[in-house]
Amino acid sequence: MADNIEQSNKEQAEGDVGEITPKSEDFSRWYIDVVRRAELADYTPVKGCMVIRPYGYGIWENTRDRLDAQLKATGHQNAYFPLFIPEGHLQREAEHVEGFAPEVAWVTHGGNNELEERLAIRPTSEAIINSLYSKWVRSWRDLPILINQWANVVRWEKVTRFFLRTTEFLWQEGHTVHATEEDAEEETLRILEIYRSLIEEDLAVPVITGLKSEGEKFAGALRTYTLEALMGDGRALQVGTSHNLGQNFSKAFNIRFEDKNQELVYAWTTSWGVTTRLIGAMVMTHGDDQGLQLPPRVAPYQVVIVPIPGKQFEETVLPAARSLRDMLATAGIRAHLDDREEHTPGWKYNEWELRGVPLRAEIGPRDVKKEQAVLVRRDNREKAFVSLETVTEVATEILESIQADLFERASTFVAANTRTAADYDSFKEIMDGPRGFIEAPWCGDEANEAQRIQEDTSATIRCLLADRKPDGGCVICGKPAKHVAIFAKAY
Amino acid sequence: MADNIEQSNKEQAEGDVGEITPKSEDFSRWYIDVVRRAELADYTPVKGCMVIRPYGYGIWENTRDRLDAQLKATGHQNAYFPLFIPEGHLQREAEHVEGFAPEVAWVTHGGNNELEERLAIRPTSEAIINSLYSKWVRSWRDLPILINQWANVVRWEKVTRFFLRTTEFLWQEGHTVHATEEDAEEETLRILEIYRSLIEEDLAVPVITGLKSEGEKFAGALRTYTLEALMGDGRALQVGTSHNLGQNFSKAFNIRFEDKNQELVYAWTTSWGVTTRLIGAMVMTHGDDQGLQLPPRVAPYQVVIVPIPGKQFEETVLPAARSLRDMLATAGIRAHLDDREEHTPGWKYNEWELRGVPLRAEIGPRDVKKEQAVLVRRDNREKAFVSLETVTEVATEILESIQADLFERASTFVAANTRTAADYDSFKEIMDGPRGFIEAPWCGDEANEAQRIQEDTSATIRCLLADRKPDGGCVICGKPAKHVAIFAKAY
Repeated sequence: MADNIEQSNKEQAEGDVGEITPKSEDFSRWYIDVVRRAELADYTPVKGCMVIRPYGYGIWENTRDRLDAQLKATGHQNAYFPLFIPEGHLQREAEHVEGFAPEVAWVTHGGNNELEERLAIRPTSEAIINSLYSKWVRSWRDLPILINQWANVVRWEKVTRFFLRTTEFLWQEGHTVHATEEDAEEETLRILEIYRSLIEEDLAVPVITGLKSEGEKFAGALRTYTLEALMGDGRALQVGTSHNLGQNFSKAFNIRFEDKNQELVYAWTTSWGVTTRLIGAMVMTHGDDQGLQLPPRVAPYQVVIVPIPGKQFEETVLPAARSLRDMLATAGIRAHLDDREEHTPGWKYNEWELRGVPLRAEIGPRDVKKEQAVLVRRDNREKAFVSLETVTEVATEILESIQADLFERASTFVAANTRTAADYDSFKEIMDGPRGFIEAPWCGDEANEAQRIQEDTSATIRCLLADRKPDGGCVICGKPAKHVAIFAKAY
Repeated sequence: MADNIEQSNKEQAEGDVGEITPKSEDFSRWYIDVVRRAELADYTPVKGCMVIRPYGYGIWENTRDRLDAQLKATGHQNAYFPLFIPEGHLQREAEHVEGFAPEVAWVTHGGNNELEERLAIRPTSEAIINSLYSKWVRSWRDLPILINQWANVVRWEKVTRFFLRTTEFLWQEGHTVHATEEDAEEETLRILEIYRSLIEEDLAVPVITGLKSEGEKFAGALRTYTLEALMGDGRALQVGTSHNLGQNFSKAFNIRFEDKNQELVYAWTTSWGVTTRLIGAMVMTHGDDQGLQLPPRVAPYQVVIVPIPGKQFEETVLPAARSLRDMLATAGIRAHLDDREEHTPGWKYNEWELRGVPLRAEIGPRDVKKEQAVLVRRDNREKAFVSLETVTEVATEILESIQADLFERASTFVAANTRTAADYDSFKEIMDGPRGFIEAPWCGDEANEAQRIQEDTSATIRCLLADRKPDGGCVICGKPAKHVAIFAKAY
């Protein structure tokens, strides 16, 4: 059966494949071009909603499976809760509804009948999940509850952008219940670390982790921990959050249990999520003028095999290419053979570079004779002539090295674009110029200072570094600083 | 970290565990009791919507993963399309909108604003997916498109029942595009066979496959193939459908391509789906008065290990039980150790029988001395004393035997409840009495005859046996028969 990825969309003719706006010329345009040309996603007739195409969804499946395994290894189980939240339920936690109501899509009719109570399409599921937890939790023996859900959510967005912000998106949302404040905090931080390892080690995207300021935390949370990445244009992207909800939701939804002293007490809850936004983060971190660069651990194809035409192609080269594919597959490498007759090898090289496949294996008549393949790295174009006897071992090593090098390169970029600012003038200069992260002391005055930065520079406080003591006065007002904060213009 | 399944819900006290309404007394009540007590699902504050709890979702994950692997092995890829369908798009295929409009949930407001065009929440995704295919398909080289989506859908139902019929449910929906009528028909039948093998071989639920009559086919299809199972109460359950959509949707959504003769022609499309209803089918097929019986291939836990208290429990029995769990896990068996201290072994036996774990392993002080475990089958209570040296091999064999025996028993039941009817009087007698499937010749007169059966007996035509020639006159009217039909009362 035909392979669907490259056959499903020929919207752009062959000549178009190279026509991606250069990254340096227009980063936003470059991003959209790459997403569409690599067939990660496309526009739809539904405003603000995209379709995630098979190649993009393949990245999501690999990302999801890796995270899912980590969550299961730490005792979490999956479940599925309703898409709908009755309006009255959404209103139970005051800050929560205030934060989410403006972006809720409302169902008002079922079939031909108007509903008595409007139904919100979940923008997040605290309100429905906690109402069930209040039924399920009775005793300390029932705790902890460690449930995760893979689902779609809807937030009515005015400005949308592929993967980064769409009206509907896919995510996982974990919702846990604990007997003590310490247990809830431990869970919140355990998840933060699982996210960090997923994003840095699997997606090769470096992050800064820290606390959100009061003004930026999740609606209804006690504390929100965040992971912030820095994109190629010097703008920050929040790539995951883990919330310690304290007793706010257990009080709003009456989640109580009998503790070991047989007293009825309120539970402590957490919630946490990452979304398909991770795909956007990966594209913007690693992509270049030729297109995508996918980290091997989540690439749908880790190796693409391009057979080179020549004499006795059908009898020698093609069988050798197939056998190479099978050898790689047996070794657990996701390999794809591009044996289309209508395209030249050169066209295929461009095509698969555009799609970011980490490693290319060329095999032609001469290689068959020498019992070798030519391996070419996507990231640095390094070529290696490798004997077929050792090709799987060498390919495995090269893929590991690409994974490490992508992270290394991205980390170097973040380090080079993380600055300190001596005073507010230099702060503004950086935000006017190269942007990036600014690490600086902050007095903690939300209403005045945080707003002033945003108005002056459109930067925001991305996070507070939990384990760092400020040295010197607030970068904005000079008053005594309470935190070391990371500032950036953000997506 | 604690295991979440048995800790998440203690709604029922220990004494309640055995209190399931006997199957013979009230099949419907028995079904609800089993679903709730085994913690497969629960009611929610959202009318018609259920929550799939971790134990139920674990079954769905195993079912999904097995089907997903089959679909990928036959060249299909996953993607994700929007939840919303603009009203105008839903109306493009006339029969389709007529079939689905009465059960659509409508979004009319986003945030505080009324929408210009109402958005349907997908009841099925032909209307949105085919509108994208019309953009993506240009040439015969783009075909076939073989895309599947795992998603939630919403159909506004008046009467709901756990898993069998809920307002929101989970499913997969495949949507394919082909160059020729033959290719589309071949795909429709390939999927039907993949479904048959999933349902019969993995879920151990026997099915009859056939064509839907004109009156029962999918709204907008050329032909609908169906899989029909027979539940323990003699009622049929449609467990999957595969539709050859002909050119109906390609014409409605303008999916055209340049064929090899460079002529612009309409494509041929298919769609097909199975849902979380499969879990309900499995419960009703295999369950008994003690509760669930899960086929090993999809059971979240295939073996539960119950350690028996005694002298030096912590030093001897518990380590042996842990080592047994690790041995089984290493052999690829999903094993769970129930080491809770607050419950007796007898309570645990009942609990895990209720939850349908196919095989129990008991290990106590005497077993530790003899270096053995006691294996007890859920289906027939057969006990085997097995040396720890061979326990993984023996457990693997027993699990395979349980899988086969569950299917065998269910097949025997279906055979015993599939009858022929000599005339309409005996037809009505069967439907009044034991119900089950009736296989009988039918004249094909939809308007008169099919309706008459439904009014007289509330039975419907479940399917037409494609490869069977009728022998004798129509069971209803005696006129010449065109088909051999399967009749039943259905869920």
